[in-house]
Amino acid sequence: MKSDELFALLRRRGVLWPTAEIYGGAQGLYDYGPLGAALKRRVEQAWTAWFVGLSHDYYVIDPAEILPEAVVRASGHLENFTDPEVSCENCHSAFRADTILEKIRPEGVDGLTTAEIAEIVHARGVKCPNCGSPALSVPRPFNLMFGFDFGVTGRERVYLRPETAQSSYLAFPRMWDVGRRALPLGIAVVGKAYRNEIAPRQVLFRMRAFTQSELQIFFDPEHFPLPFERLRDETLPVVRAAQRLAGSENVELTTAGDLVSSGGLPEFYAFHLAHSYRFFRDVLGFPARRLRLLEKSDQERAFYNRIQFDIEADLESLGGFRELGAVHYRGDYDLGRHGQGSGRDLAVTLTGGRTVLPHVLELTSGPDRSLWALADLHLGHDGDRTVWHLPAYLAPVLAGVFPLIPKAHAAYALHLADDLAAAGIPVQYDDAGTIGKRYARMDEAGTPFCVTVDGETLTEGPNRDTVTLRERDSRSQSRVPVADLGGRLATAARFPRPSRT
Amino acid sequence: MKSDELFALLRRRGVLWPTAEIYGGAQGLYDYGPLGAALKRRVEQAWTAWFVGLSHDYYVIDPAEILPEAVVRASGHLENFTDPEVSCENCHSAFRADTILEKIRPEGVDGLTTAEIAEIVHARGVKCPNCGSPALSVPRPFNLMFGFDFGVTGRERVYLRPETAQSSYLAFPRMWDVGRRALPLGIAVVGKAYRNEIAPRQVLFRMRAFTQSELQIFFDPEHFPLPFERLRDETLPVVRAAQRLAGSENVELTTAGDLVSSGGLPEFYAFHLAHSYRFFRDVLGFPARRLRLLEKSDQERAFYNRIQFDIEADLESLGGFRELGAVHYRGDYDLGRHGQGSGRDLAVTLTGGRTVLPHVLELTSGPDRSLWALADLHLGHDGDRTVWHLPAYLAPVLAGVFPLIPKAHAAYALHLADDLAAAGIPVQYDDAGTIGKRYARMDEAGTPFCVTVDGETLTEGPNRDTVTLRERDSRSQSRVPVADLGGRLATAARFPRPSRT
Repeated sequence: MKSDELFALLRRRGVLWPTAEIYGGAQGLYDYGPLGAALKRRVEQAWTAWFVGLSHDYYVIDPAEILPEAVVRASGHLENFTDPEVSCENCHSAFRADTILEKIRPEGVDGLTTAEIAEIVHARGVKCPNCGSPALSVPRPFNLMFGFDFGVTGRERVYLRPETAQSSYLAFPRMWDVGRRALPLGIAVVGKAYRNEIAPRQVLFRMRAFTQSELQIFFDPEHFPLPFERLRDETLPVVRAAQRLAGSENVELTTAGDLVSSGGLPEFYAFHLAHSYRFFRDVLGFPARRLRLLEKSDQERAFYNRIQFDIEADLESLGGFRELGAVHYRGDYDLGRHGQGSGRDLAVTLTGGRTVLPHVLELTSGPDRSLWALADLHLGHDGDRTVWHLPAYLAPVLAGVFPLIPKAHAAYALHLADDLAAAGIPVQYDDAGTIGKRYARMDEAGTPFCVTVDGETLTEGPNRDTVTLRERDSRSQSRVPVADLGGRLATAARFPRPSRT
Repeated sequence: MKSDELFALLRRRGVLWPTAEIYGGAQGLYDYGPLGAALKRRVEQAWTAWFVGLSHDYYVIDPAEILPEAVVRASGHLENFTDPEVSCENCHSAFRADTILEKIRPEGVDGLTTAEIAEIVHARGVKCPNCGSPALSVPRPFNLMFGFDFGVTGRERVYLRPETAQSSYLAFPRMWDVGRRALPLGIAVVGKAYRNEIAPRQVLFRMRAFTQSELQIFFDPEHFPLPFERLRDETLPVVRAAQRLAGSENVELTTAGDLVSSGGLPEFYAFHLAHSYRFFRDVLGFPARRLRLLEKSDQERAFYNRIQFDIEADLESLGGFRELGAVHYRGDYDLGRHGQGSGRDLAVTLTGGRTVLPHVLELTSGPDRSLWALADLHLGHDGDRTVWHLPAYLAPVLAGVFPLIPKAHAAYALHLADDLAAAGIPVQYDDAGTIGKRYARMDEAGTPFCVTVDGETLTEGPNRDTVTLRERDSRSQSRVPVADLGGRLATAARFPRPSRT
């Protein structure tokens, strides 16, 4: 589906809609409705099970989204978290420089100074994409952070965090004291980040308020113990930076082991790249052929990232590959900066007496983007049906519970729905319309199972206390004892986890 | 425990700490560590199960925290969401007027104009609480919202929402279209709200960024069907507004039924007041004698609230009763204002053809405050032990899993911990120190169960594949088959829910 069509479907179904819709909306902000809120939560939980489940020493914290100015000064965001912006002096529209130069310079403007961008705009006679006027301003660096006054004095300035990572770096010394005082130590945050994007677009792909799921692994650069064997033979669809500089974006299938032995990547990096890739392929269920791991070149990546691969999915709605997540080897940049900024030495002393400033490996992804990709890749027309083929453990509603004839079977069905809900299983009761219509609504919502209570359920005989269980994908129906239902659904709701033992 | 002692304990244990601690913190902002994040999440989930579980037509949504100016203008926050602020012209400290007048006027300053407050400050010769100077400014209304520029033009202004409720009001028309088009319709949000408090204090009780759990029930004022019988005989510790105006704050024990028959409250209000009270008593487990339902007078409550009771707990750490939640009957104020503000008529047509502008009943509580109250009321010294007597379903860690002798039993214990985690049960593996020390750590973290793998677990014989299960509160120990453990823990993790059938 095209982006517009997909968004219209999701909006109609109450998955998401623009914030303050009745006031005309707010650019780059979206509200999740019941299905969207539940799906996003399930994606976040699946992420947590998969990544935080990597070690008993990885933890989830929940820090505030507001940061004092000293923090974003130390992190470099106050000075450097900018996009070059060009505005039209005729119609007052504002554009990102890379957008305005999209056709002339498809490789983007990363690494160019504002003067160099101005030179290109001038030399090529670029016009305003909105009104066609040639009166474009000189590009200026536009800081993407939302900043505001804090307290009553007017002298204290704070910022909505532009990335959750900063919260984890700030928490490191406290977490070191609270925990086992050993490396690697993982700190995960699933929370909001905010960016005043010059041009929000592509619905959930460039929002001004969005969620990040990020795990920061603090490790000893001399020793990162991990079970590399487990992922050595994993086949990865890779595009290396050198190959891209040579003009090819072709995916090369290679193994994690080869990335180390002949590809020059450290084991710890290849291991986590493979693990991250598996999240999108095996947990979110995206087809391998729609995924690629794209290495960023020196020029493209932030200067503090020593190695960066983006994990991208090929999305029909957005016309090509888009970033869903990334693996950033950030070295000791972050703890070094915050050590300087706060005046507190953030190095730690390991068992054995060696003192080390931990390095950081960041595993990041965006649940909003994942949700959109789940719609793009799994939601579609299947003959005359619209079916959302979500993995069962991600489904907002795991089972629809229906009385075949509401008047006769509602009490039993309601009771069953309540029992399942009490066991923590997300169910939805529905008694409106024909069974066919109810199946159709559940198919569209991604519900993998439907349970129907009928006359046989209530009548003495071989089918007493059994229900019809219908599966979304196969449309197969079978008779299942009510007593088995909870266990069966609970098993289907389990998130995949990395094996550790 | 006193507030300072309790906070020190929670901080040391990694439950929470000030945001940007290494930079000296930020007033009114806190980060939750692993235990705090998990506990807060459990409290939110318990709230959702209890309140959203009231009806199949109540839904959870997840809207953006940023609101366009038109929204907060229509809601009245732009004009009225202020506290009177007094600043010292000598030391530049700023104070809320009610704080500065605390001793002279313990009943607060609600309903007074800034001129009247100025008159009192002047007449009584009030001095700066910080430096003692009499040079206090004239009080000014200080708006508590955080506002900032949105987009690049400098012409668009947005605000961090001061309450989650506004997001639900904005969502109402979309939810009406998506859902069954019937009343009552419930919209719940568990999310952040932000207030630039003049004087943040009492740790989690007056924060600048905090979470609200709010259910907005949109209903037909002529007909709100509910099973009142179920709560008619519930005994409630009530302090009525009339009684307070007459000078008494004594709790009167009365039933929900009496509040209707002789107390003048509508059934729908008394029902939800009793249900909300039960959340704190039966779900969070607070002793009834530490709770009260305090009715707000005409002067105290916001003018659009037709009826308001606050649910308060008596907290040793904060020196008395503090608000944990409330039940607000807001009438048709909110949909009326947003109808005017957006130019869209928000009335709905019911089956039968009658058109009605729904009224709103708001059930609100704060998970941050609940978390603090859970510490105040359930965490304490028990002889030489420090024990957090959390209800099992709220515990951040439901079970500690230990190998008796790490070298011999670690593999089995790790495997068991992973199996339980895979079933969605929050467990923590611990092999550090003596079993006694591990029990003590779990007691302090509120973990209700500890499971120890020992030699018998691994050896052929009657206790093969059994473990020692130790209960926190009774300290009793018993031998339990590993095969039974998952089911037993899963049952303990179930949240209480309202009966519906």
